Amino acid sequence: MPVSIEAARQVLHAQSFSRLLDAELTRFSAEGVELRVPVTAQVTQQNGFVHGGVVSYAADNALTFAGGAALGPAVVTSEFKINYVRPAMGDALVARASVVHAGRTQAVCRCEVFSLSGGDETLCAIAQGTITTVGSRRDDA
Amino acid sequence: MPVSIEAARQVLHAQSFSRLLDAELTRFSAEGVELRVPVTAQVTQQNGFVHGGVVSYAADNALTFAGGAALGPAVVTSEFKINYVRPAMGDALVARASVVHAGRTQAVCRCEVFSLSGGDETLCAIAQGTITTVGSRRDDA
Amino acid sequence: MPVSIEAARQVLHAQSFSRLLDAELTRFSAEGVELRVPVTAQVTQQNGFVHGGVVSYAADNALTFAGGAALGPAVVTSEFKINYVRPAMGDALVARASVVHAGRTQAVCRCEVFSLSGGDETLCAIAQGTITTVGSRRDDA
Amino acid sequence: MPVSIEAARQVLHAQSFSRLLDAELTRFSAEGVELRVPVTAQVTQQNGFVHGGVVSYAADNALTFAGGAALGPAVVTSEFKINYVRPAMGDALVARASVVHAGRTQAVCRCEVFSLSGGDETLCAIAQGTITTVGSRRDDA
Repeated sequence: MPVSIEAARQVLHAQSFSRLLDAELTRFSAEGVELRVPVTAQVTQQNGFVHGGVVSYAADNALTFAGGAALGPAVVTSEFKINYVRPAMGDALVARASVVHAGRTQAVCRCEVFSLSGGDETLCAIAQGTITTVGSRRDDA
Repeated sequence: MPVSIEAARQVLHAQSFSRLLDAELTRFSAEGVELRVPVTAQVTQQNGFVHGGVVSYAADNALTFAGGAALGPAVVTSEFKINYVRPAMGDALVARASVVHAGRTQAVCRCEVFSLSGGDETLCAIAQGTITTVGSRRDDA
Repeated sequence: MPVSIEAARQVLHAQSFSRLLDAELTRFSAEGVELRVPVTAQVTQQNGFVHGGVVSYAADNALTFAGGAALGPAVVTSEFKINYVRPAMGDALVARASVVHAGRTQAVCRCEVFSLSGGDETLCAIAQGTITTVGSRRDDA
Repeated sequence: MPVSIEAARQVLHAQSFSRLLDAELTRFSAEGVELRVPVTAQVTQQNGFVHGGVVSYAADNALTFAGGAALGPAVVTSEFKINYVRPAMGDALVARASVVHAGRTQAVCRCEVFSLSGGDETLCAIAQGTITTVGSRRDDA
């Protein structure tokens, strides 16, 4: 069930919260996905850096789409873990995620989130998590 | 270095992203904190549930404030892990976090996030993470 | 599919590694499980404390049995996260785990690991993870 | 404070639990470390696979040594997360860990654990965690 980048972008666009943050899928393939979130005044915390919640959103969503590229469009993030390694700032966040191992109903994925400033990228967080097909969890809700 | 709920609310209010989400600190003490995020049309994903990124924001921020109640106001979340257990929906999310163990520069905290609907609460996620004082990490940035 | 403590102990006893560590199930019910691992000279690290790997074994296995009490005997830990909060030492480790949410094929569980010394207990680690029935993952191996 | 592989092996050898498991450091440098644990009858679980607790030991310890290569010999794992992706079996486990970001007192590291069978390697788990210098935590114990 290969999903095209156009179909994936429609899913992203159907997420009000992703529209609120102006998130954009800039890559989507079996090899990995890239999600970009512009840094604006509305996503900061008290010290002027990007709020950790926005970094975790980017990681979570990139993980979901990476899993979706392997499992099909109807997937959710079941769980993930994130380590923040540097304050996030700059012009945009770029989250790159890929599948480490996929079965039929679950994929384990990894993600790196970078601050993009001019042409420079600085790693600001890494994440790891499990993506699950929605059908396989319906009975678990 | 006890922090009052008024001071904590000022920190929350200084976070543009928390203002964007209309997040509110409804409890703040050494025993634990409670962060409430209204569920509006702008925080959903493609199936109409609250986006996981908003749930993780609520968990992350509640963890930070729980750590801050123990360590003082200048803290950040270093890392956390979240398991989503049910779709989040309803009128609001309520994230309750408390300190499990605190030293001088770090606190390990736990959080539960609930969907609030009418008077009913349903658990939708649990999280666990490390909060660190900013000074202790400055050399690590 | 309720599992008796006797049946659970047989599973534990069928784990060579648990026999090597002399681990014992001291409680096993839908409300939670308790796994006890004696502290001997063979489980320490270079500073004389219990090796983190033994603490993580105790957490991992207690999580699995807690999940098994809800899902049946054929379960594995899919993933977990652990925070070490104090050096582990004393006479024994006691890991207590319980289910936070269970579906038909997955359970999210939490665990606390204590150092037992004389009659005193000291928290040394907390963990959180996902337990999955083996059948539901067979196609995923 | 560069640590030689000989010094690192002495630390490993000073861990009774690592001696019990016959663990061996087969690589140790700033670029990453490799820890090998032979698979014997004593490290299995009830289905004949390597016990998850042994896999998590390998990941935890490889993470610690990777952090130690960056931070110096006196380090501990503060926290980590592991996803098991395939049953572990074969002749040996090989855990490879490297530093993603290091400050003065903390390092965030990643690890992959493989089953080694004949000349073949199969990924069985991935992990991510935080390594901390002991001095920086002494006041936190």
